[in-house]
Amino acid sequence: MQIEDLKPLLAPGNRKIVLLVMDGLGGLPMEPGGKTELETAVTPNMNKLAAEGILGQMRPISTGITPGSGPAHLSLFGIDPMSAEVGRGVLEAFGVDVPVNKGDIAARGNFCTLDSNGVIVDRCAGRISSKDAAPICEKLKAIKLPGIEVEIKHVKEFRFVVVLRGAGLSPDLDDTDPERIGTAPLKVHAQNGAADKAANLFNQWIEEAKKIIKDEPKANGITLRGFATDPGLPSYKELYNLRAACVALYPMYRGAARLVGMDLIKPQGESPSDEFKAVADRWNDYDFFYIHIKQTDSFGEDGDFAGKVNVIECVDAALPSLLALNPDVLIITGDHSTPAKLRGHSWHPVPYLLWAPATVRPDLETEFGERSCMRGGMGIFTALDNMPLALAHALRLNKFGA
Amino acid sequence: MQIEDLKPLLAPGNRKIVLLVMDGLGGLPMEPGGKTELETAVTPNMNKLAAEGILGQMRPISTGITPGSGPAHLSLFGIDPMSAEVGRGVLEAFGVDVPVNKGDIAARGNFCTLDSNGVIVDRCAGRISSKDAAPICEKLKAIKLPGIEVEIKHVKEFRFVVVLRGAGLSPDLDDTDPERIGTAPLKVHAQNGAADKAANLFNQWIEEAKKIIKDEPKANGITLRGFATDPGLPSYKELYNLRAACVALYPMYRGAARLVGMDLIKPQGESPSDEFKAVADRWNDYDFFYIHIKQTDSFGEDGDFAGKVNVIECVDAALPSLLALNPDVLIITGDHSTPAKLRGHSWHPVPYLLWAPATVRPDLETEFGERSCMRGGMGIFTALDNMPLALAHALRLNKFGA
Repeated sequence: MQIEDLKPLLAPGNRKIVLLVMDGLGGLPMEPGGKTELETAVTPNMNKLAAEGILGQMRPISTGITPGSGPAHLSLFGIDPMSAEVGRGVLEAFGVDVPVNKGDIAARGNFCTLDSNGVIVDRCAGRISSKDAAPICEKLKAIKLPGIEVEIKHVKEFRFVVVLRGAGLSPDLDDTDPERIGTAPLKVHAQNGAADKAANLFNQWIEEAKKIIKDEPKANGITLRGFATDPGLPSYKELYNLRAACVALYPMYRGAARLVGMDLIKPQGESPSDEFKAVADRWNDYDFFYIHIKQTDSFGEDGDFAGKVNVIECVDAALPSLLALNPDVLIITGDHSTPAKLRGHSWHPVPYLLWAPATVRPDLETEFGERSCMRGGMGIFTALDNMPLALAHALRLNKFGA
Repeated sequence: MQIEDLKPLLAPGNRKIVLLVMDGLGGLPMEPGGKTELETAVTPNMNKLAAEGILGQMRPISTGITPGSGPAHLSLFGIDPMSAEVGRGVLEAFGVDVPVNKGDIAARGNFCTLDSNGVIVDRCAGRISSKDAAPICEKLKAIKLPGIEVEIKHVKEFRFVVVLRGAGLSPDLDDTDPERIGTAPLKVHAQNGAADKAANLFNQWIEEAKKIIKDEPKANGITLRGFATDPGLPSYKELYNLRAACVALYPMYRGAARLVGMDLIKPQGESPSDEFKAVADRWNDYDFFYIHIKQTDSFGEDGDFAGKVNVIECVDAALPSLLALNPDVLIITGDHSTPAKLRGHSWHPVPYLLWAPATVRPDLETEFGERSCMRGGMGIFTALDNMPLALAHALRLNKFGA
């Protein structure tokens, strides 16, 4: 059964669903015989939920496939990323409130540092601060292209988005980041004739930009990636009849949520309890809350096992404020695994905890961890099952057939 | 691999398969920390089979989807209910031996009670007894429609079936039951122009019927639902080369079995041991027996936990008579879950026990219950796997490829 097949089954309801995503949650032991990050963390609240609920292992995309955050989130939201690929450019643009309509082409831009020969010496422009990078983006707004509207907006640190709007543009363009230092950024290359116009325009824009930033100490070069147009995804309202909200600090996750029609709620601070407070403030306005915790992934990417453990413990410590809202369904999981041991995303399935006091069939597990999830009652399942499970446990799906 | 792909692999054989379906078997604990209906029931015979066999969890349709009994049974029989939806009218008609051929339109009828304004005050006609309702159906046989053959037959209590036979009829008709009291039954409404003729005929029939029953104290109104024609399903003989028989007390399940070409065996009484006795009496005539136990579902629907437990215990107590027949493969499962806690069908997977002394690979579980099935060796699988498993364990499938 496909997600679209749920539509005729949707039932009205007032039960609330919370999807708490700790980015890159899944981990690995650093040493043989050791524990994972989640198993190491002291998580009395999650363990209580595990004992009352049911555990399983979620496969983000397909066995053995390491997902990016974009496709992994789409899966969690019930959108098959194999049939609806969403470019990074669009995710970033949506995350910073830059509209991308059908036919517009968005790209994610990175500032980089070039030497006097135009060769990349730092792909992230010395991780230039947002304070320094934002004014450079302002200067780039001066660039005009013939017959085309250009919008550029700073995202965070060395990252920005640029969107071209006009007739006859195609997103079939290759990334310009050579993905290594010691070589010059590539030209924007069209994958087919239909994309020649867009390639020429982006190349023109880059040439103009290079003139403007040529004297910047760090950010004197540019790479573009993830060229994409609006994928026209269905919304949570259409798909699930849910009023859905997103609480996330990072633009890309806000972008992914907005792509499926979620409202964005801005927390007052950056801690897990600030994010939970933001949910509490708007509890009556929505049926579904997606909460995103970024730092589990960041520490995983840095290979910082203890840092990741600490973030998980902070989330656990803040959980009582979320539970005090009495959600009907609470799902705690990740979008993918980011084991500190591997310093990056991985293909390992993601620990999944489903708690729903009125409807859950508990298993025998009493702790939230990778190995308890391996024994959990839900087995191994695809992330595309996440939304059907959430809706079912919120009693928001009618019976199929007589 | 699809079910049709089994055909070239079918092997002759004489091993016998028994599929024992306890309707709505899967359950939930009523209280945190409690046991399910199946876990609570004292089932020494099933536990012995569990210890010798292998357990798993079966998904009737798709994750999160609560199935009706019709689609759930089709899945168990190896027919994908997403591609072959069968209307309730056809299931009911087949269950009471009323033929529905291609182009005939069957509907399930309910008697209801109308007040003097024609508004429904009881959707089930006070649950009128079969003894009282059957003669009313007899009277309705007097209704003639121009150029059309009409067959009406009483089913049980307030339920009957009516079948129209003639040229140019389409089943694309909406149910007339408004699904609440305080409003009149709806007219039969055609979903498209091709169904106008059938809509008019059914509406004529209802008007005539209302004249005949207008003075009935309880059954003075009629609603129709589940309009459908013969879906033309393949038979067990074609699909599996099995001589198959059904032992079921309720018309709808007999109807589902007949749709896939099973013979119907009528037990002499209504207890599980009566049903098993009916199998024993015809043991030599068939390769496959489908046995349906209804009351597990009925008690689940009523929220009667203890009642459901008791039915399971009755089935267990009767099992030795079934085992005395020495089936080669015995599968004990449900068509879906009906937890007493939820008073209705649910989406939770169904406990599944496969016992086949000559061929089973046993797991470590020793009791038949939801949580032992969660740990069972078969994992979670779809109901469409039921028939391939049954055939394989009966050594009725040849090797695929060299």
